[in-house]
Amino acid sequence: MEYDGTNYHGWQIQEGVVTIQGILENTICRLTGERVRVHGASRTDAGVHAFGQVAAFRTTSSLDTDTMRRALNALLPRDIRIREATETHETFHPRDDALSKRYFYVIATRNTQSAFTVNYAWAIPYLLDQEAMEEAALPLIGKHDFSAFMGSGSDVRGTTREIYSLRVERMSTIPFMSLPIEGDYLKITVEANGFLRHMVRNIIGTLVEIGRKKRHPDTAKEILESRDRRNAGQTAPAKGLFLEKIVY
Amino acid sequence: MEYDGTNYHGWQIQEGVVTIQGILENTICRLTGERVRVHGASRTDAGVHAFGQVAAFRTTSSLDTDTMRRALNALLPRDIRIREATETHETFHPRDDALSKRYFYVIATRNTQSAFTVNYAWAIPYLLDQEAMEEAALPLIGKHDFSAFMGSGSDVRGTTREIYSLRVERMSTIPFMSLPIEGDYLKITVEANGFLRHMVRNIIGTLVEIGRKKRHPDTAKEILESRDRRNAGQTAPAKGLFLEKIVY
Repeated sequence: MEYDGTNYHGWQIQEGVVTIQGILENTICRLTGERVRVHGASRTDAGVHAFGQVAAFRTTSSLDTDTMRRALNALLPRDIRIREATETHETFHPRDDALSKRYFYVIATRNTQSAFTVNYAWAIPYLLDQEAMEEAALPLIGKHDFSAFMGSGSDVRGTTREIYSLRVERMSTIPFMSLPIEGDYLKITVEANGFLRHMVRNIIGTLVEIGRKKRHPDTAKEILESRDRRNAGQTAPAKGLFLEKIVY
Repeated sequence: MEYDGTNYHGWQIQEGVVTIQGILENTICRLTGERVRVHGASRTDAGVHAFGQVAAFRTTSSLDTDTMRRALNALLPRDIRIREATETHETFHPRDDALSKRYFYVIATRNTQSAFTVNYAWAIPYLLDQEAMEEAALPLIGKHDFSAFMGSGSDVRGTTREIYSLRVERMSTIPFMSLPIEGDYLKITVEANGFLRHMVRNIIGTLVEIGRKKRHPDTAKEILESRDRRNAGQTAPAKGLFLEKIVY
């Protein structure tokens, strides 16, 4: 699934707000008459976008998968699209069966923000030190206890995750746009076997403070080892974050 | 100026609605204390976007142009950006002095619409016949009376305009995006010495009916020569239209 998260209160169903999961369950009900539970691979926050969300549900409908996809797309809001639909085995769970998840984050630096990137990038009107950010990112790669980068209100048992890659790239346009006027963007891509609540956004917020030279690159490793959330940087805004791919 | 027209009722000031011209005049007043009239090169409709709008106003402010630009950008909504500011001569008028204006229009064909192009393309779930559209476009190029393509409610005196170029291109992504998943888009670019009200959108609507084989390519020329609006196709939606450039 692909979605523009701007108008939604994130993936997960909540009372009184419009969520992707809620819309999808209602749309399936309109089509099949069945009240199903849709399981997603990632509970994206309000404002976070997705190019590669994966979701699964159980149905007794006799529609073939491509007809189901087309019919759901016809009923869904146009900023939520189902790219592909396939049948799978009974025990498949999009989150538990994922080998890794990849996100990217977009920062518009200096004064090169475009009118068209308002909902898709964090605007920071400074030049960021890319090398310092890359240096700070290195010790975060690997299997660690990421408690220091976990948002509050999380009830997970284990706080150890393995980051497979964490890259900082400079780009002249945002990753899914090719604007006629060149800007100065940073794209940060992170892949891991899983993420704690707000973990990506807290890592990005910390790297940005290092990029602005408010902190030394070594502090990222110190924050990680402290396991104390109070030491990490601010939580980066949701709108710059994109769920790129779930690997099975 | 660059703007995302999604949230605005077009360029021109009107009572009770939010317009680009209105916001710009209010923002200049907040900055300089002066009530100025801003003249624009093109009165873009509600929902139409701009990469290259040009606007001018007269001020007694002693701020230099780059400081003015930065200060206005700091006060303007983030989906309206001033790209460049320069001083000009007293008699400059952005519309009257323009040699030509270039627009492009984006159509998302078949079922390849992206969640991220909802506000930036006309979604037509069919394959369009690009060659038929190109053939139909040819006789529109040149100096003609374009009454048949003029929207109602227009009070212009002359209805003759000269189209310098009108091109239909197939693209795998929309012109200012590079989505990770390829789609099937048409970009129609038109440059003229000026446009009547809704002229671009009425030409696009007619070409689309030809592309869908509801009309023969020859009908475009027949409609033009009839000078009767009732003969032209539907007005294409505003959201696919972009003001690309004003040439002086």
